[in-house]
Amino acid sequence: MRESRVKKLFQERISKLHTFLTEQELNAVLITSPKHVYYLTGFFTDPHERFMGLVIPAEGKPALIVPALDREAAAEASFVQDIHTHTDIQNPYEILKQVLPANLTKLGIEKSHMTVERYEALGQVVLASSYVDVEEPLREMRLIKSADEVDRLKHAVQLVEDSLRETLKKVKTGMTETEIVAELEFQMKRLGAEGPSFTSMVLAGEKSALPHGKPGTRQVQEGDLLLFDIGVAANGYVSDITRTFAVGEISTQLQEIYETVLAANEAAIAEIRPGVTFAHLDKTARDVIAAKGYGEYFMHRLGHGLGMDVHEYPSVHSQNQEVLRSGMVFTIEPGIYLPGIGGVRIEDDVLVTETGVEILTQFPKKLTSIN
Amino acid sequence: MRESRVKKLFQERISKLHTFLTEQELNAVLITSPKHVYYLTGFFTDPHERFMGLVIPAEGKPALIVPALDREAAAEASFVQDIHTHTDIQNPYEILKQVLPANLTKLGIEKSHMTVERYEALGQVVLASSYVDVEEPLREMRLIKSADEVDRLKHAVQLVEDSLRETLKKVKTGMTETEIVAELEFQMKRLGAEGPSFTSMVLAGEKSALPHGKPGTRQVQEGDLLLFDIGVAANGYVSDITRTFAVGEISTQLQEIYETVLAANEAAIAEIRPGVTFAHLDKTARDVIAAKGYGEYFMHRLGHGLGMDVHEYPSVHSQNQEVLRSGMVFTIEPGIYLPGIGGVRIEDDVLVTETGVEILTQFPKKLTSIN
Repeated sequence: MRESRVKKLFQERISKLHTFLTEQELNAVLITSPKHVYYLTGFFTDPHERFMGLVIPAEGKPALIVPALDREAAAEASFVQDIHTHTDIQNPYEILKQVLPANLTKLGIEKSHMTVERYEALGQVVLASSYVDVEEPLREMRLIKSADEVDRLKHAVQLVEDSLRETLKKVKTGMTETEIVAELEFQMKRLGAEGPSFTSMVLAGEKSALPHGKPGTRQVQEGDLLLFDIGVAANGYVSDITRTFAVGEISTQLQEIYETVLAANEAAIAEIRPGVTFAHLDKTARDVIAAKGYGEYFMHRLGHGLGMDVHEYPSVHSQNQEVLRSGMVFTIEPGIYLPGIGGVRIEDDVLVTETGVEILTQFPKKLTSIN
Repeated sequence: MRESRVKKLFQERISKLHTFLTEQELNAVLITSPKHVYYLTGFFTDPHERFMGLVIPAEGKPALIVPALDREAAAEASFVQDIHTHTDIQNPYEILKQVLPANLTKLGIEKSHMTVERYEALGQVVLASSYVDVEEPLREMRLIKSADEVDRLKHAVQLVEDSLRETLKKVKTGMTETEIVAELEFQMKRLGAEGPSFTSMVLAGEKSALPHGKPGTRQVQEGDLLLFDIGVAANGYVSDITRTFAVGEISTQLQEIYETVLAANEAAIAEIRPGVTFAHLDKTARDVIAAKGYGEYFMHRLGHGLGMDVHEYPSVHSQNQEVLRSGMVFTIEPGIYLPGIGGVRIEDDVLVTETGVEILTQFPKKLTSIN
């Protein structure tokens, strides 16, 4: 039953893409990003520089083209069972041309995934007269999560929160950021995650003021803020959470920025429901921070969509006048960064429901001192 | 002194790109891949979907454009100190246009990195009349490793080998592939690697016959082959090694494929010296395997270049008639995969020297039984 439900999911997704294909009068759609091949067939591989493509023709059945060494894995996992292969010494575009409809004029491609190099190589062989971007229908599909996708996201959230909990038990002053990352990622794997969904960020003291800082040999010290911006990938979906802790006693200034960021996080989340704009959420959080005089130290958007990718649609920023819809999942992550002193960011993953919001991240947000 | 030597390295690299720019009569080159920004400036960040670009103009000094939240980190790490920023609500191409020379006609870009979407967005703002791919001079530069790069590669190799050694101490029958990966990646981090350089592959028993298999809940059993295809990233460079072990006693057939793969690996390595072709190396290994009747079970190329990327130039395959040059680094990784039974791959990282070869990987290759 589970099997057939999953099959139905792929059928529905491919048929939505087919609707777009018909509207746009395309002869076929070519999907080349590993994530979207996975989303539409259930088969995931990273073919590195090799070519992989899913062809959805206007008429007839979809077909998959994979590197020869992925044939067995593709046959096992893919909903699409018409599988063609190429070896490293063949021109994959020649094989693609045979699979594509004859007399091709309009081809749908993923413009935000395909490189200019491949675009030119493809164009030289398949000779379509125009190429239409298919990102929009894919984005639109991915924007509203199915129950199955929400379950996967919740699972990824639970794994990262459990990993954080286990790691915190072992954090002591004197440990380096890198040592904490090693422990954290060990826990992720041990608990069953495929791995981190992005470079795990563990930043101590003044380094927590770098929104994109890299963990290194900085040791955790009494009085530090200790920031974790972490996530895992599991079953094709990812989590992304930030929590900031106090190491022992921290200064009044650091306590104040913590409470301000927390208030901004909670104020924005309280506004989440279908119909409000992303700009409104961003403004809600930004106003809380600006009112305390820290406006200039919150220099990034409030959040981003989350699903198969750590950064996907929607974008939660001050200029986005789109409205929230039930089924959307995104992060809420205000921050204040005082250069040379320290930074706080508190990030939750949220799901828009029919009536409001479900916060997927459960890890406590009250200022907590470790050690 | 170290500082100034590194500075000189960046100067030399940028000046090589400048030579290409002059030859091609470009007004400027725009570098957008994080790896090449790192290679040319010393600053690394993954800007995700945000724009980052290094502009090298025909006249005047190079400039870097980064997301606002990366300003501090860029200023600290980059050799290029003219830094421009953009926030999430600005069109980065407008800022790029201001930085690019006026009256732009010919712009160099990275066609194998830039997506069609960005290419179109860029084109709408900067309005150059032609775009030239700059991959070739970058590839050419990266193909021949400097002493500094070889040191980094050796360091990455040592880290992965030490991680493997530590992990093997803990492998027992009954452990799952995933548990072994968790232990392995913990060791990588603990020993100081940034992390795995690709999805760590630990495959047991019949799963070792999948050249792109995924570690899962398969438990290690007596009589299995246990294959590790693993690597780490450290200081911007990566390693990539495969070793296959016997768990207790293995069948005569598995012993035979092991010895055949090892002979193929060693025969190919023995042929490495400046002037021979990549095709010759591939043929040397393939002939050994074919002679034992396993030709059809070795269905991938012999190897690939290694450096900042796990897969870079050169490609070691049967059709590549280019010749080896001193300073090239690549993998030699023959394999035999018997579906449903088991597979063996033995992969080394090698450096072409003036007189022959230096094998960077040191981990023993003699068939070893664990447990």
